[in-house]
Amino acid sequence: MTTDAERFLDDFTQLSAFGATAAGGVERQAATAADGQSRAWLAAWLTGHGFTVAQDRIGNQFGLLEFRPDAPYVLAGSHLDSQPRGGRFDGAYGVLAAAHAADRLRAQVAATATVPPCNIAVVNWFNEEGSRFKPSMMGSGVFTGKLPLAGALVTADAAGVTVQEALAGIGGTGPDDVFGTDRTVSSYAEIHIEQGRELDKGGVTLGLVDATWAANKYEMAVIGAQSHTGATAMADRQDALYGAALVVVAVRELADRFGEELHTSCGQLTVHPNSPVVVAREVHLHLDLRSPSDELLVQADAELHRRLAEIEVKAGVQVQRRFAHTWKGQFYQPAGVALAGAVAADLGISQMLVQTRAGHDSTNMKDMVPTVMLFIPSVDGISHSEAEFTRDDDLCAGVDVLTETLARMVQGAL
Amino acid sequence: MTTDAERFLDDFTQLSAFGATAAGGVERQAATAADGQSRAWLAAWLTGHGFTVAQDRIGNQFGLLEFRPDAPYVLAGSHLDSQPRGGRFDGAYGVLAAAHAADRLRAQVAATATVPPCNIAVVNWFNEEGSRFKPSMMGSGVFTGKLPLAGALVTADAAGVTVQEALAGIGGTGPDDVFGTDRTVSSYAEIHIEQGRELDKGGVTLGLVDATWAANKYEMAVIGAQSHTGATAMADRQDALYGAALVVVAVRELADRFGEELHTSCGQLTVHPNSPVVVAREVHLHLDLRSPSDELLVQADAELHRRLAEIEVKAGVQVQRRFAHTWKGQFYQPAGVALAGAVAADLGISQMLVQTRAGHDSTNMKDMVPTVMLFIPSVDGISHSEAEFTRDDDLCAGVDVLTETLARMVQGAL
Repeated sequence: MTTDAERFLDDFTQLSAFGATAAGGVERQAATAADGQSRAWLAAWLTGHGFTVAQDRIGNQFGLLEFRPDAPYVLAGSHLDSQPRGGRFDGAYGVLAAAHAADRLRAQVAATATVPPCNIAVVNWFNEEGSRFKPSMMGSGVFTGKLPLAGALVTADAAGVTVQEALAGIGGTGPDDVFGTDRTVSSYAEIHIEQGRELDKGGVTLGLVDATWAANKYEMAVIGAQSHTGATAMADRQDALYGAALVVVAVRELADRFGEELHTSCGQLTVHPNSPVVVAREVHLHLDLRSPSDELLVQADAELHRRLAEIEVKAGVQVQRRFAHTWKGQFYQPAGVALAGAVAADLGISQMLVQTRAGHDSTNMKDMVPTVMLFIPSVDGISHSEAEFTRDDDLCAGVDVLTETLARMVQGAL
Repeated sequence: MTTDAERFLDDFTQLSAFGATAAGGVERQAATAADGQSRAWLAAWLTGHGFTVAQDRIGNQFGLLEFRPDAPYVLAGSHLDSQPRGGRFDGAYGVLAAAHAADRLRAQVAATATVPPCNIAVVNWFNEEGSRFKPSMMGSGVFTGKLPLAGALVTADAAGVTVQEALAGIGGTGPDDVFGTDRTVSSYAEIHIEQGRELDKGGVTLGLVDATWAANKYEMAVIGAQSHTGATAMADRQDALYGAALVVVAVRELADRFGEELHTSCGQLTVHPNSPVVVAREVHLHLDLRSPSDELLVQADAELHRRLAEIEVKAGVQVQRRFAHTWKGQFYQPAGVALAGAVAADLGISQMLVQTRAGHDSTNMKDMVPTVMLFIPSVDGISHSEAEFTRDDDLCAGVDVLTETLARMVQGAL
């Protein structure tokens, strides 16, 4: 193993200690103390390796390496926040890989004395996960102008703490318009574990992401009437939890009916008042439908709404659709896919095209600048779980590919 | 309207102000600040009317009127705590009715100068509702020796606050063994709104409760595996929330199958980690099955467990039964039913026999001493809801019946 690889693995072990759980995962939700610790560690690492550290108002954290004043920046990174009891690779790997890759470039540039046409910067996007504050991909959403800053800052978690307050609590914001009028970002790269089992199944080291699944996310409220679980006759009940359970089952049955091209979930369901002897008056739930086919998603959505109307009658409840966040299936720039494919071929690393079913910060960035999205294998495709695991060899191969990809990007390859 | 009735209604309005909600209900869960305020108001009322106020270690609050030293006590009351967004009549009516009835007896005894063979006491049982601290009927459970005091005191709410800490926070305990070695309770009476629509439907003012439904309450855990809602293939999921939804639906279908003699509910369901983009790893739920027939409940329980085994296979989860609290159908002493029936007949108040589907503190007390349980109508049978409502006439008629019933009980009628 090379010294570069050893250094990377050693740093990854250090980073994985923040919010570490006994079962080998991390719990580092956005702007919690553990998130703050991992950010402080990253800031110290970046500063120690010659980067200038800056934060913007939504808590994105940057490390800048300026080779040439006023030149545009190639940006690379991912996110350090995690799901509750999440895995230690999801996001964090991509941030550290970007930091190491940029640092290797710094050394290359210093050794050659040729100044490249672009600068390079590393980013830790704020709140990619969206488990504490919704929506997910918040930091990159604000950065790319898709999500208004003011609304994001006043978004509250379940305890009523806002993003602004939580960020202040970990010293997580800056006044900086990091890439403002005088600096621009010209391209973006991100590397991530697959969160699926295509690479693992195929024994392939590198996934070139060429497209992203379409997704419909709905917040729904099922409205019933509060009553006594023992005393109220069954016929008199308007049981919001019974109605919500029928919705959860209907959502699963959609996937059974439409087949492998549709993923459906309800991951969040909250009951009011949630007392053992009270028939629930209101249940809030968050539905998630994803497909590589926009058309299939339209069909699934129509079928879901037919089922919701039936459930309203059956359970004597109202089902209100309160908020929807949808995106169509989208493509990454073919030039980025080709660039990373050429790098992998030159390095003798096996590769295949893959799609991403999960959203990533690169999903936002690709709409602003040419973007490269890379995957490395995740054993058994496990993700958002403490059991998430990627082998050392794959971690190190990913950093090598990212380094060479960024080397070509700072030379203006995209 | 008599002055007595006006006084009662006026006091009931005052009592209903503690924890009042905009929609006409109250939110006064056990040992919260609002519960503490209502307890302080009751203590002041009792003291002002010549009662001696005492509290025991589990937070039951008593007002004692001693006519004859060392004589046994007739006890009457209910509970001031409520469900989240509960009704203002459930429990609170019975406590205030008992206080007014005892106060009228005090005046009667003072006017006649004959000393009755029994004393009288009023009680506000701690945590009848069980919404904040489980199980329900906690205060009367400890008082009757059915629930160990030490275990009850360390029971924690969802925020980790124990009963002992919460009671200390509202000054809700005393060192007193209120009815200890030198004093005894010889009988008990409780009046409550029906929480069903039999009386309201029949236009009958008084329900004589002769039996209580059997109940099975289960705490269950559905165990799955945490994963990513978008990325994880449907076939690879072990979705604890899907499993739990199937359980909620199965429980409802039990009631559909067994008919009006079976009430089933799931009122409490908690998802872990409850993140919009995470397939749930674990769901806790509280099931509640009730029937007037012990035998039918045994059949329903067997059917439920057959269904749970199917659900385990269908959803790829484990369903664990963690805790069960069950009671069989039980009868109130016929002598108590007859006594209250005679009182109502003498007062010209319409009456009928009813069963209670809900548990009450009298369910515990009847196993210790002869007990009278009375119902007054609740419009449309609504309960555990801000929409709960009972007419003034019925409230006042109930206090009249309770007063005369207690008058006969202190003379040794039971």
